[in-house]
Amino acid sequence: MQLHIQTSTHTYPIYLQKGILSSLSSHVDLERKIIIITDTNIPTQYIQTVQQQCTYSYVYTCQSGEEAKSFAVYEDILRVMLDQHFSRKDAVIALGGGVIGDLAGFVAATYMRGIDFINIPTTTLSQIDSSIGGKVAINVDSYKNMVGAFYPPIAVFIDPNTLQTLPTRHYYNGLVEALKAGLIYNKELVTFLGECDVYTDIEKIIYEALLVKKEVVEKDEFESNLRKILNFGHTIGHGLESYYGLQGLLHGEAVALGMWYSIEDESIKEVLRPIYSKLQQRTSIQYDPKEVYNYILNDKKANNTTISYVTLSTIGEAKVEEIELPSILTRLEDKVWEAHVDKASN
Amino acid sequence: MQLHIQTSTHTYPIYLQKGILSSLSSHVDLERKIIIITDTNIPTQYIQTVQQQCTYSYVYTCQSGEEAKSFAVYEDILRVMLDQHFSRKDAVIALGGGVIGDLAGFVAATYMRGIDFINIPTTTLSQIDSSIGGKVAINVDSYKNMVGAFYPPIAVFIDPNTLQTLPTRHYYNGLVEALKAGLIYNKELVTFLGECDVYTDIEKIIYEALLVKKEVVEKDEFESNLRKILNFGHTIGHGLESYYGLQGLLHGEAVALGMWYSIEDESIKEVLRPIYSKLQQRTSIQYDPKEVYNYILNDKKANNTTISYVTLSTIGEAKVEEIELPSILTRLEDKVWEAHVDKASN
Repeated sequence: MQLHIQTSTHTYPIYLQKGILSSLSSHVDLERKIIIITDTNIPTQYIQTVQQQCTYSYVYTCQSGEEAKSFAVYEDILRVMLDQHFSRKDAVIALGGGVIGDLAGFVAATYMRGIDFINIPTTTLSQIDSSIGGKVAINVDSYKNMVGAFYPPIAVFIDPNTLQTLPTRHYYNGLVEALKAGLIYNKELVTFLGECDVYTDIEKIIYEALLVKKEVVEKDEFESNLRKILNFGHTIGHGLESYYGLQGLLHGEAVALGMWYSIEDESIKEVLRPIYSKLQQRTSIQYDPKEVYNYILNDKKANNTTISYVTLSTIGEAKVEEIELPSILTRLEDKVWEAHVDKASN
Repeated sequence: MQLHIQTSTHTYPIYLQKGILSSLSSHVDLERKIIIITDTNIPTQYIQTVQQQCTYSYVYTCQSGEEAKSFAVYEDILRVMLDQHFSRKDAVIALGGGVIGDLAGFVAATYMRGIDFINIPTTTLSQIDSSIGGKVAINVDSYKNMVGAFYPPIAVFIDPNTLQTLPTRHYYNGLVEALKAGLIYNKELVTFLGECDVYTDIEKIIYEALLVKKEVVEKDEFESNLRKILNFGHTIGHGLESYYGLQGLLHGEAVALGMWYSIEDESIKEVLRPIYSKLQQRTSIQYDPKEVYNYILNDKKANNTTISYVTLSTIGEAKVEEIELPSILTRLEDKVWEAHVDKASN
């Protein structure tokens, strides 16, 4: 399967196919210097499959985890590229999850003011979520994605075979973004997630989720309006993710909680409970409301007094509201209280 | 006077007018958080003039000099902005020369994936050269502009009154870029530079040079072809600038030499000799060809075996050639040899 994503500067293809990792060079020019940015979680065999298709490649392996998206690693990669005489005509390949895609994309966006970027996401989360949109970034300390760019790749290769080596918890983590795509834009996808086999039907899940993101991002590349609906669950989600630190909640797990806390309608929750259970996601967690709120205050979607906040009108339809910042704190406090009450009544 | 620059994403104005520094707020929104990035060379009075027009401003003062374009300073500014809760709706003002414009522009380009950038160049060089084009960058060690972006400002304010406090050497340094603009695209500007008073006629000089750059950049925003002519003198110029280190040659002085070394036609040199003398520029300097060549090898315009090199067909007309890299070394060696012969015959 193939999708084409339109940006303000160019159109790029997403190739979604089992085994596509072995035929990259039929689709993009690899006869130039290529830096393959990857991490310690990625099996050597995948790296070799990519290397074999390049005339000259340099492999930069980060320690796995969010820490790779730091200034220190970013700078180090740029220095390596300079030492290796990478020119403006050479290219960067990301081979890994969203962390690697974000980091490698920001390297490509800024090295000599921008060189070709080829993205090969290898996790459910990155295949579903971060392969479209052109958002690349690194973190500043524990604040996520504070420094970055909008920089689309020249091509994305999604090989579902690479998911075979992914730990179960990470597999489910990524499916939360497919659920989000369905909740904000495609009711049928939510129904399908409830009924399908999440392993054998993974290509269809990825494809349908990508279609949602494609449509939303093409309509609003620079996130001025519609695109904000993609942040459903992410305001509180990011807050919880920061609060729990880099080793605590996975991104999708935090977003699952963020979405749950943003749904007021009990009938929607009824539909979602079995799906949350199937996707191995919690619907509550302990936290200190004030601390989570402080992380949210530093969220990039915040201006001085209000914040863009996404809720659901119904399953398949989201709306964006500008709300007063303190109302987020109230919501966080309410949710902690509800959890107490639930616990007491059980 | 006012120019409008068209980019792929938006159009922005350049205001060129004595005293415009006092009326920024009539033209751009300063009722938000503003970080004013400046350096120790900029008189306090200019900074205060800008601050008085802002509702909330934070002044970040770098040590003057090329060293400000470092990872360390870049990171420090981003952390300050995060600490001060700058949001995506806030803005960065550059108040200073090209170094400050490049640094502040790269900060604006990448903070939260891009916030508004307002450029107020205060040197002849930056008013003439770096206020159009959207190229922003920092250095990696002694390699210039290796990390950056194409990121146009929302507005540029050029106040020739700010040149009153500029040292003479820097004043002339900037005029070299006006000479370059004339040489590659506008013969009348070259003639005018030979005849005018470079102090009283500065507005016209800036305006005419900006018109050249505007036309070239609008035709080729991302430097795929025509825009390369703006690099006339810059290949060897950058090499010499790196070779002499950050305290040696000023940018314009190095470009003046780079241009001179790229002109073979003796009749063009005849016309230029008095203008070089008027602009206080040298036509030769000592250097080690191999070392300068090594710096050029790391130049971003280089791919593996060839380099884009600009020469003049005639005054007012440039051409870009892809030449073999080693021919640059030959040229550098020839010029050293010619200087020896000249010296011996005098």
